[in-house]
Formats: sequence, C-alpha cells, structure tokens
Amino acid sequence: MTPWPAAKVGDAATAIDTPALILDLDAFERNIALMANTLKAKGIRLRAHAKSHKCPEIAKIQIAHGAVGICCQKVSEAAVFVAAGIQDVLVTNQIISPLKAKKLFALARTATIGILVDAPQQVEVLRAEALLTGCAMDVYVEVNVGSNRCGVSPQDAVTLSNLVTQSAPLRFAGLHCYHGAAQHLRNPAERKTAIEQASKLANEVRNALQAQGIFCQRISGAGTGTFLHECDSGIFDEVQAGSYIFMDRDYGENEAGPNDLRFENALFIQTSVMSFPQSNRAVVDAGLKAFSVDSGMPAVWQRPDLQLTKASDEHGVIEVSNPERIHLGDYLTLIPGHCDPTVNLYDELVCIRNNRVEAIWPISARGALL
Amino acid sequence: MTPWPAAKVGDAATAIDTPALILDLDAFERNIALMANTLKAKGIRLRAHAKSHKCPEIAKIQIAHGAVGICCQKVSEAAVFVAAGIQDVLVTNQIISPLKAKKLFALARTATIGILVDAPQQVEVLRAEALLTGCAMDVYVEVNVGSNRCGVSPQDAVTLSNLVTQSAPLRFAGLHCYHGAAQHLRNPAERKTAIEQASKLANEVRNALQAQGIFCQRISGAGTGTFLHECDSGIFDEVQAGSYIFMDRDYGENEAGPNDLRFENALFIQTSVMSFPQSNRAVVDAGLKAFSVDSGMPAVWQRPDLQLTKASDEHGVIEVSNPERIHLGDYLTLIPGHCDPTVNLYDELVCIRNNRVEAIWPISARGALL
Repeated sequence: MTPWPAAKVGDAATAIDTPALILDLDAFERNIALMANTLKAKGIRLRAHAKSHKCPEIAKIQIAHGAVGICCQKVSEAAVFVAAGIQDVLVTNQIISPLKAKKLFALARTATIGILVDAPQQVEVLRAEALLTGCAMDVYVEVNVGSNRCGVSPQDAVTLSNLVTQSAPLRFAGLHCYHGAAQHLRNPAERKTAIEQASKLANEVRNALQAQGIFCQRISGAGTGTFLHECDSGIFDEVQAGSYIFMDRDYGENEAGPNDLRFENALFIQTSVMSFPQSNRAVVDAGLKAFSVDSGMPAVWQRPDLQLTKASDEHGVIEVSNPERIHLGDYLTLIPGHCDPTVNLYDELVCIRNNRVEAIWPISARGALL
Repeated sequence: MTPWPAAKVGDAATAIDTPALILDLDAFERNIALMANTLKAKGIRLRAHAKSHKCPEIAKIQIAHGAVGICCQKVSEAAVFVAAGIQDVLVTNQIISPLKAKKLFALARTATIGILVDAPQQVEVLRAEALLTGCAMDVYVEVNVGSNRCGVSPQDAVTLSNLVTQSAPLRFAGLHCYHGAAQHLRNPAERKTAIEQASKLANEVRNALQAQGIFCQRISGAGTGTFLHECDSGIFDEVQAGSYIFMDRDYGENEAGPNDLRFENALFIQTSVMSFPQSNRAVVDAGLKAFSVDSGMPAVWQRPDLQLTKASDEHGVIEVSNPERIHLGDYLTLIPGHCDPTVNLYDELVCIRNNRVEAIWPISARGALL
C-alpha cells in the first residue's frame, strides 16, 4: 500500500497527491438515482454488480436506493462485502474447488448467498459442502446466451437445472443469462438485436423447464450497456449493472440509442504533468499501474487537444497539439478506458464535491481474487 | 485485500487457492546468481529495479548478491523500501510537486536517495526542499537516448547539469540514460544498434560536461533486454535491470543474440479451470484483475495446445485444441505477458520449491503509486 494517503477529508482538490482515483460525488449520485428510478418505474430488481467498485460504502448506497443486493465475481470479494454488512450476495461465477465451497458456505451462515453452475461437477462440490454444513444455498444455472464465455447451452440447461432441483439442500433459484459481449457493441441496433436473441433463448429455457414442472423464479443478467433491452424483454426480472455508477471511456464510445439513459463520467484519475521534454510531448505520473489498458488508453477529460498515446509502468505519454495550453506541474484528469480493473489498482476512492475532498472510501475488496 | 491467503508455508503446491502469484524459487535464485556473477565479472554495478517486484525480501536478496542498491519508480515506493531497511534508493523518475519533494527528503534523513530531473523547475522544487531541510541529495540528469519518454535532449543536458551543479545542497551525480524501448526490440541486432547509439549519445554528453569542467561520476541505465550491450559499451557503469529475476512472455519473445544470457521464467500465475462449457473452450479463474494484458495475453506454461485468447475481469478464456488433455478443476500455470504490472495486482508472492510452499513474501509496495 501507499505509505501515505493521496488526500484527506477537507483537502482542496488541488492538494491531492497524484496519481489518485477520484469520484465526482455529484455525478455519481445522479447516476445512482437515474438507475434506481428507472428500474423502480419498470418494476425490475437491481442487483448491482460490486466488481466495478469493490467498495462497501457504494454497495450500501446502492441498497439504500433500492437494490436488492449485490453481485460479486469471487468468493473472497463476497466475503469482504458480507463482513461489511451486505446481506444478499450473488457470486456470478462458477467454483469447482472444495476449499472455495467451504468459504462460500461459511458466508451463507449470516447472509443470503447465491452461486452459478454450468456443469454437474460444480453442483456436486456445492452439494457436498451443503450437506456437511446443513446449509441451503441458491444456485443459478448459467446459460450461454451469446457471450461464449461460461454457461451451458440452452439445450443443456434443463438437464443441469433438473440436477440442481434434485441436489437438496441446494435450491434451484433460476437462470443467469448475462450477455457481457453485447454491452460494448457500438451500434445500438446491434445491442438491441443481441439482447432480443438472448431473451428469446432465456425464454425458451424457462418454457422447457416449466414443461418439466420446474419453476424458474428468477432470470437475472444485463449490464450497463444493454439493461433497458433486458427490462423491456418481459423475460428478465433482475438487472446486474455495475459500471453505470462510474462509466468509462469504452462505454462512452457506445453510440447511444434513442432511449438510452445518459449516465455521466464520475470516475477519474487525477494525474500531474511531471515531465514536458518536448513541445509535442508531455509525460504524466500515471501509467500501467494507475489505469488498465485492456480497453485502450484513457482519454484526457475535456482536453481534446491532448492524447495519451503510450503508457509504461508509471508514465503516461501525452501527445500535445497546443503546447501553450499545458505546463509542467499541471493537473490532468483522465477517464479510464475500463473502470473495473482500474478501480482494482487503488486502495481508496477520493470523493470530491465542489472541489473539496468530502470523503475517502476504502476499496476494501481490491485484490480479492480468490 | 483478500480476506484469506492463497497459501501458507508448508502447503503442497496442489493446495494453493487460485488465482495466485507463484515464484519458482530455484529458477529465481539461478536468475539472481546469473546476473550477479555476470556483472561482477564485468566490474559493472547492479542497481536492481524494484518496480518489478515491489518486495523488500527480494531487494535484500539482490543486495546480498552484490547489488549496490535499488531503483524505484515512485517516492512512495521508495518509502516502503527504506522503511524495510534498504539503504540506497534511486527514484528513476521526475517529481514536480513540493509535497513529493518533502516526502523524498524525509527519506534522505536515513537513506541514500537519488532522483532524476529533466527540467529546471524540478531542480528548483528539489533545491527549495533541500535548503529547508539542510539535506543534500544525488540528482541525475535524465537524457533521452532513444526512448522518447522523459529526458532532455543530449544538446540540453549540459545546461541542465550545469544548473544542478549550481544548486547546492543538491549534488550532480551523473546521467540517467535508460533506453526502455530498446529492451523489447525483437531482433538482437536492432537491440545492439539501439544501445550503441544510446551509448554514443551518453558519451557525447559526458565529454561535453568534461569540457566544461563538470565531472560525471555515473552513467546509469540498461534493462534486462539489453544490459550486456550497455556493459560492453565502456560508457555505462551501472545497470538497472529488474525483470531478469522473473522474466515474462513478452521478454520470452525477444530473439536471443549469440551472447545473451538465459534467464528463466520464475514468475507464474496458478489458476484453475472453473468452467469447461464446450470441448474447444475452457475458462480459468484468472482474468484482467489477475494479470495485465498491456503486453498481450499470458501464455499457458508448457501447454502449447492451450491458448488464452480472451480475458474479462475474472475470466480467462482458453482455446482448447485437445479436449482430452484438460479437465474441469485442473490447475493451469500462466506466464504473465508483462511481469511488472502483474505483480502489482497481488499482495503476496507464493514461493515454491519442490512442489511445496517454502515462503510467502509480501509485495509491500503494491499500489504505491504516489
């Protein structure tokens, strides 16, 4: 960890040590309200994805605004949130090791915990631990509805769901039909088509289950890029969006559809120009350890004249088109290419309002990989 | 942080929770010895770059094997190592804020600290703090010898060096001539040519300084990909290599020159197949939060039949060409694409010998961005 914090409550924004991860509280709160009000009006549950923020303070705000609980991607991530008082966590991932099953069921003693499966062996591992601990657990069958990552084929979903229903004390809770790849299709019509197809597949599985007398209580999925389509499908009843609270450069490049909501950039990296060796090249103190580049380089906020073109471990190289407008020591504000893995690089969120540090929120599940 | 460790000392390697960052101690120790012996024979100093490992235990081993000290990339990183007892740290970077200067000079009370400059304003900030604290400090002028990142042009290096010599209690310590871009040129002849050119520029600056009566005690630079050329130049007298202890997939793709040393892969990510939904696709529990992808995807160690083709936050998608050779629950071992930002994702190194966990080393400077 950094041996001193980037800022403390009450500091002026101009006194923040750099690089630092910044949350614009006004924009963040508007994003929280926009999502909460939209889903409330539609009668759809929000189970906010906490992998985006890894921050119990934010999870609590999401729940205070109506979220039924959170999603986590890892058992250890869930453990951090349960320890912080979050009562309902769905781990939207598979586990196969008895050790992880033991850790997961330990959480189920005090919280409502759910987990995904896409293979009979995972059901067996979970069932063994459930029997050992005498503890029930919600199990969702993940269906591959287009992302081609995890998930059984729609054809195999009934067999696996059947197995779960026969594996008490596990409880078959429903289907997990998340189409991650659709979130970042640039064209709004393509996103709509992808989710129409995903919804059709999810509905076919639900009907096939019903034909076998298996009640599917919940179809959960959807992310920030497409959730309105899942809402409008009449099939999904739970949305797992996470990025809407922050947004990032990559989401900003999605072409907006006619009805898409306007979530705002609320997550930034504050950085300093530490070197300006040539009139067309400045170097900031944020590099590969201050932002992830899996979705491309960060953009420089409100500075189309500056392009971050290259990053090494602790340097970001900025192409300067107007050298009069940038100086050694200047603060620059970056919009991360991808918010989730960028947040995971920091221990704290420096929360800003009216150019003052209003709060410091620990990113408590940072590095919770297990 | 992860609420439980991936492993504890004495565990079998097969009991490690995944994903985990693994150090093969035998390979690591051979790398340490190979570098130490090579540089000793050549009479060149090693100032090992600690940004690669961020781990005081490793820095102490490097120093025990003859390194004169370490490099760090950030003031806060240096602070972690000084607190752990490292006595000689060169921060191979510029700083421009008085706050960082204050933190840096605080370290100089108990340790030998150096810093780079490439602009007069940086010299001013350092000098102001030096005068305030009555503390001297080694200052190196960074020269751009080909990487086009930071660094003054060779033509401007004399003027800036002159300024440093006139800025007591700062001490002009020498030139920093690091050619990062040359490390990853695939062709050995191209690497050689790049460093010959860098050495020529460094030598021209030294001669120009000498002509003005400025003694240049040290020319420091060089990384794992090229250091033999810097050693052979007769110009460089200090090597800043870091990655040699670990190696990574990207370095492995450098075509070896006739005399290049064979450092071994010692750093791995242990991961598990958590989903195997199709005969040609398996999914492991390591994704963008378990390895960096700035230098491309990790390779699967000793498994040319498996290609990690896609990564999301906590998933790595493996293209399988021989489905009989992989099973749900299997451990797979990944070679990170780029070691430095991958290490920065973990709190601990799980150190393995003879398939047992021999030690757990904290990555104490993980996240030390300031």
